[in-house]
Amino acid sequence: MEVTTDLIHTGTLARDASHVLTVLSTAQKDAALLAIADALEARTARVLAANAIDIEAGRAKGLSAALLDRLLLNEARIAALAADTRKVAGLPDPVGSDIESRLLPNGLRVTKRRIPLGVIGVIYEARPNVTIDIATLCLKTGNAAILRGGTETIHSNSALAQVIQEALAGTAVPATAVQYIDNPDRELVGQLLRLDQFVDVIIPRGGASLHRRCKEQSTIPVITGGVGICHVFVDESADLQQAVDIVENGKTHRPSVCNSLDTVLVYRPVAEAFLPKMAERLKRHGVELRATADALAMLQQAGHEARLAGPEDFDTEWMSLVLGVKIVDSMDEAIAHIRRHSMDHSDAIVTRDFANANRFVNAVNSSAVFVNASTRFNDGGQFGLGAEVAVSTQKLHARGPMGLAELTTYKWIGVGDGHVRK
Amino acid sequence: MEVTTDLIHTGTLARDASHVLTVLSTAQKDAALLAIADALEARTARVLAANAIDIEAGRAKGLSAALLDRLLLNEARIAALAADTRKVAGLPDPVGSDIESRLLPNGLRVTKRRIPLGVIGVIYEARPNVTIDIATLCLKTGNAAILRGGTETIHSNSALAQVIQEALAGTAVPATAVQYIDNPDRELVGQLLRLDQFVDVIIPRGGASLHRRCKEQSTIPVITGGVGICHVFVDESADLQQAVDIVENGKTHRPSVCNSLDTVLVYRPVAEAFLPKMAERLKRHGVELRATADALAMLQQAGHEARLAGPEDFDTEWMSLVLGVKIVDSMDEAIAHIRRHSMDHSDAIVTRDFANANRFVNAVNSSAVFVNASTRFNDGGQFGLGAEVAVSTQKLHARGPMGLAELTTYKWIGVGDGHVRK
Repeated sequence: MEVTTDLIHTGTLARDASHVLTVLSTAQKDAALLAIADALEARTARVLAANAIDIEAGRAKGLSAALLDRLLLNEARIAALAADTRKVAGLPDPVGSDIESRLLPNGLRVTKRRIPLGVIGVIYEARPNVTIDIATLCLKTGNAAILRGGTETIHSNSALAQVIQEALAGTAVPATAVQYIDNPDRELVGQLLRLDQFVDVIIPRGGASLHRRCKEQSTIPVITGGVGICHVFVDESADLQQAVDIVENGKTHRPSVCNSLDTVLVYRPVAEAFLPKMAERLKRHGVELRATADALAMLQQAGHEARLAGPEDFDTEWMSLVLGVKIVDSMDEAIAHIRRHSMDHSDAIVTRDFANANRFVNAVNSSAVFVNASTRFNDGGQFGLGAEVAVSTQKLHARGPMGLAELTTYKWIGVGDGHVRK
Repeated sequence: MEVTTDLIHTGTLARDASHVLTVLSTAQKDAALLAIADALEARTARVLAANAIDIEAGRAKGLSAALLDRLLLNEARIAALAADTRKVAGLPDPVGSDIESRLLPNGLRVTKRRIPLGVIGVIYEARPNVTIDIATLCLKTGNAAILRGGTETIHSNSALAQVIQEALAGTAVPATAVQYIDNPDRELVGQLLRLDQFVDVIIPRGGASLHRRCKEQSTIPVITGGVGICHVFVDESADLQQAVDIVENGKTHRPSVCNSLDTVLVYRPVAEAFLPKMAERLKRHGVELRATADALAMLQQAGHEARLAGPEDFDTEWMSLVLGVKIVDSMDEAIAHIRRHSMDHSDAIVTRDFANANRFVNAVNSSAVFVNASTRFNDGGQFGLGAEVAVSTQKLHARGPMGLAELTTYKWIGVGDGHVRK
């Protein structure tokens, strides 16, 4: 697949903009963010008019009310985007801080300093707020961004990108620091994924198939994540009341997100005491249980409804009020199940046993492992990072919630006085 | 391209071994490394016999004496490998250390803890010592390794891998923690690059074309590096004696490695004073100069030999005693040249001007940027990392020299007492 001249032009402009951005002060970047916030408010009408075209097209295509609501912008939502942008301007800037410094025996001082990643390509689906969200986080950290959103919001996204560029024109940040690919041809995504001459990192924000496509096709390093099959293991020594609370929270607090709970594993000796309690609580929320045969029998004996789990059910990220239930005969079996079915996102144990807690924490290498806490805590806001770019489940660079620091890399600076290597 | 059953078997065994490795103590891993060192010494004869087959085949294929020497093992070289292995056993283990810890306002404690990457695929060329080198660094950091070396050393590598596996059989580390792909079919490299179900990271160790192939074909994150076009910029205020020393060291200390110097950029006002001094010094080493027309005229006027540089000469990693020479009219021109031609490896400025030093350091984002020091210092041993896996020139995960810590990732551990998200 050839990269079209247009994307090469986009890439060149982004690369040049990143060279300007890398030497700007925090004050200059923050002033640009405040200009974007002001412009969002001043040009709300224009953005809403563009959004109305997307909504109209979505209705004509018969999109569901829930999806249309995700696409919708209104005055309150744009005001919230402006407020979020001002909040990002107020966050500490990680760029320029020294991570470590060593004075070598020969007198050469080497220092590891945070710098921007460079040019970030972001591919996302549906919600237009991501355009503002990711652009402001990239600018704050001195990165240029090439954005490609879903076709359902192409008019909204283009209008938002235009507002950003107009706002930047009066600041120290080049307008080309944020560019939006507004050609709906899907092949451009494939071309963006091969623009390694200009783009340093690809961040996909969407479902499993988008992440898979990026992994398969990209010649640029990709940060994958945002997809998880999350487990809670209820140990023999668990406080069963806590276990019920943690399962309820994980499953029902916000079922459509990646850190929500998908499977409960129960140690057999406590299954008969725990499962009916859990089912009772989840019934209030209308949760459907998919249980292994032995668990199903216990649940039905206690008068609860459930369905027999098929084997693929334990490899499903539910994103809805469905929960897999399995009885295990040992913690080793629980750990083995998690290793086989988890996607390295968030897994938890409920236990009062110190040794069991440690063994679980050591053996399970998900991006976040919890003891006596809900999987829902694997989140940048909860971890106090101030902002969240994505939740990474890969091994390189960043794992778990990615904040501003995770949008930076570092360089080594060696300062000598005519030092040469002997 | 389908992944063959054999590689799936290899991957499954490696993944299982990594689960054992992740919970081993440092003492258990170090004992395994010492067992490997002992086995290397005890089985030297067997390894040398295998190496003799490779050397014989290399001679028959007409390999150069230099290349044959790279392939050659002898008693001294194997003793050195055993000594290096014992040295790795003596290094501090980064796994298990806590990078940071936060007590959230709700009382949940979240801690970022270093863990192994998991399974590392290493693809390398020629030298058989890499087999021991990379296997021991992976084991030290709790990673399983799948190795694929060059066909020229297939017998040596297989013998070394067998020695490792036999040594591991008597230790807490599973023998399958180090596996070698000894099928010479080149398609297996492509298959390894798509084994993302089992392999967490690919580390290529070889030339630019190997790195390019990995970027193009891998569905697994790749750590690229080890290739660089390195620059020294001689500023107007430079101590010209220091500048000559730094150029000489960069170019002639070890011309065949990635941090050696490729291009000198000289600020015009000092070119006439500097270039003849530099040429005089480099003549001792037989360095060939490829200069732009203005620099060529100056050199010839001073009685030095040089050739006119073609445009591709500034995009060439020489790996030999050749040096590009260019006169620039400003530091901005030097920075622009470096941005266009550097591969983000190592670049340097020679200057006595404080503001110029800072401006250069801020504007050039190579993995290591030096002030008044040789580019040859971009090296794990020089930086005091204790070991060097590779020199990374990419933006994600690690940049510059990668030591043991760069073979690890982290997970978040959240410890609560029934915490749920409100």
